[in-house]
Amino acid sequence: MSRMFEEIREQSVTLERTLSGGRPRAEAFRKIVTRRRPKLIVLVARGTSDNAALFGRYLLEITTGIPVSLAAPSISTLYRARVDYREALVVAISQSGESTDTNFLLERAREQGALTLGITNERSSSLTKLAEHVFLVRAGKERSVAATKTYTGQVLLLYLLAYALGGAIRLTDLERIPAIVDSALRLENEILEFSGRYGFMHHAVVVGRGLNYANAFEFALKLMETCYVVAERFSSADFLHGPIALVEPHFPVFAFAPAGVTWGSIGDTLEKLKGLRAEVVAITDRANREAARRATRIIQLPQALKEVLTPIPYIVPAQLFTACLAEQKGLDPDRPRTLRKVTLTL
Amino acid sequence: MSRMFEEIREQSVTLERTLSGGRPRAEAFRKIVTRRRPKLIVLVARGTSDNAALFGRYLLEITTGIPVSLAAPSISTLYRARVDYREALVVAISQSGESTDTNFLLERAREQGALTLGITNERSSSLTKLAEHVFLVRAGKERSVAATKTYTGQVLLLYLLAYALGGAIRLTDLERIPAIVDSALRLENEILEFSGRYGFMHHAVVVGRGLNYANAFEFALKLMETCYVVAERFSSADFLHGPIALVEPHFPVFAFAPAGVTWGSIGDTLEKLKGLRAEVVAITDRANREAARRATRIIQLPQALKEVLTPIPYIVPAQLFTACLAEQKGLDPDRPRTLRKVTLTL
Repeated sequence: MSRMFEEIREQSVTLERTLSGGRPRAEAFRKIVTRRRPKLIVLVARGTSDNAALFGRYLLEITTGIPVSLAAPSISTLYRARVDYREALVVAISQSGESTDTNFLLERAREQGALTLGITNERSSSLTKLAEHVFLVRAGKERSVAATKTYTGQVLLLYLLAYALGGAIRLTDLERIPAIVDSALRLENEILEFSGRYGFMHHAVVVGRGLNYANAFEFALKLMETCYVVAERFSSADFLHGPIALVEPHFPVFAFAPAGVTWGSIGDTLEKLKGLRAEVVAITDRANREAARRATRIIQLPQALKEVLTPIPYIVPAQLFTACLAEQKGLDPDRPRTLRKVTLTL
Repeated sequence: MSRMFEEIREQSVTLERTLSGGRPRAEAFRKIVTRRRPKLIVLVARGTSDNAALFGRYLLEITTGIPVSLAAPSISTLYRARVDYREALVVAISQSGESTDTNFLLERAREQGALTLGITNERSSSLTKLAEHVFLVRAGKERSVAATKTYTGQVLLLYLLAYALGGAIRLTDLERIPAIVDSALRLENEILEFSGRYGFMHHAVVVGRGLNYANAFEFALKLMETCYVVAERFSSADFLHGPIALVEPHFPVFAFAPAGVTWGSIGDTLEKLKGLRAEVVAITDRANREAARRATRIIQLPQALKEVLTPIPYIVPAQLFTACLAEQKGLDPDRPRTLRKVTLTL
């Protein structure tokens, strides 16, 4: 049993702990941003944390109306440019809190007078010292190189950040997430059996849209890191306008397919892929009655979920799938070849 | 001979025309933004134009210090969120000027009071009517579905935009670009011969960093659309922290490798890839003496270029490569399967 598997399974517990620990911090931060509302939110991160940032980019703009920018760290670290962040909230997201370029950017922004927030799993990291405010992921030590429980923890804290900024996020909704994750985790045996089919898959595409766009990046990253599958990731809109030319019969496509505002776009894509005889696996839930008709196979969560609540539960089957597939291929997802846990970037 | 090929070859002329036509517009716009300096720049685009926007995201932050956000159109079109763009300059980039979601976003921003600019190749498109200001790509009609001359034209106009916003861009430098492109076009025969080697390549990775990061996206998109190669694209920093696990001996990696501030990161990546016995093709120029030592092969532009001037000349060999490879594979790059020219997004 890989550590990755163990850490995936811990998530209903780690999310519950992160939520209860994070609520008082979010309430305190809410008072601060009521007095001093940022005009811009800048998210800075690398790797899996950058995928959480991509989720935050959507959630924060959708729920707060404050423009969001995903920082390109090289602009500060290599080009030494001074971007004007004086009226911004700069949020650094890092599992370890030790990402050199992420911390560099946050530090410079704080010197300029920006409001700064760190989101990290490590209580006594450099990031918690550098940032004026901290939201802690309380996932316990993450030992697998393939990050899972810290990703969902970061995503959960971004909901709390949206709440703190006055976004229409209901805390009672967030309280439901650990139990939904728990039921997603019960799909393990089904997914273990199912993943066997993909043992010889060399490449794949993952599509998502809106709040689940980040999950497409995260699923693809896990497929690349732990299963060595060349996995592309696209929004369904971008995929339709170009890269879909790749698709031959039997080409594997994974899609995040919740009911709600993104289904029109995802559904159209699935319809088109069906016409091309691609093999489409849709991750969905009981609220979407159409997904099964358009996909080759579905992985279905047992509940009927509001779209805004899908990102955390939906990544869980994808995590299980990659951990199972790695195991089937005889690979060790905890120690992918050529990788280390902490990212030090020039 | 495909239209794509013809259009690639037109670029020294189309760029010259776009520059001379764009300069008075840029000077006029400079006066406007001197009186009313935006606090944020929002770039909105799809497909190849979105890759130009990604270039703009780097160039504008580096040279002007104004924060830049790449818009996620679904936030407006699907979630119907109202993002606060009142103090922003919103720039829509579209070859046809008819991208529905791009235009929708620009229109809403203008209603809010944002300063709006359209960058398009079509003088009488919807975009030129919707935007308060227009910078025209003067590339002539683009008939190939695979956009080439409009991409470089858009990139050139983004330099002029940076200049208009007070960025340290020298017009005399821009004037050199058409001649450099002309010499890049003379690599055609070399690339035609060279591309034969890649006729059975099923997947690849393209890496770039900083100002050439967008070129990695653009090269990969062309490989996907016109050659049906599953082509990933990464910044060298992100690649090293995860997806590099994909790399086995002989794995093909294409890298944009100019001398200058990004070479440390790109060079380290190439060194690591050499250790993994990947097959690395570096696009470079005479200013970088190290590239040949670290890459398996190089495509070298004859001049020694300043890093800031590399993005346009560097994409040209990549365009030639994809057009040649498509031809070698017996594919029609002008009409990739399943695609149309104008993108209408839900």
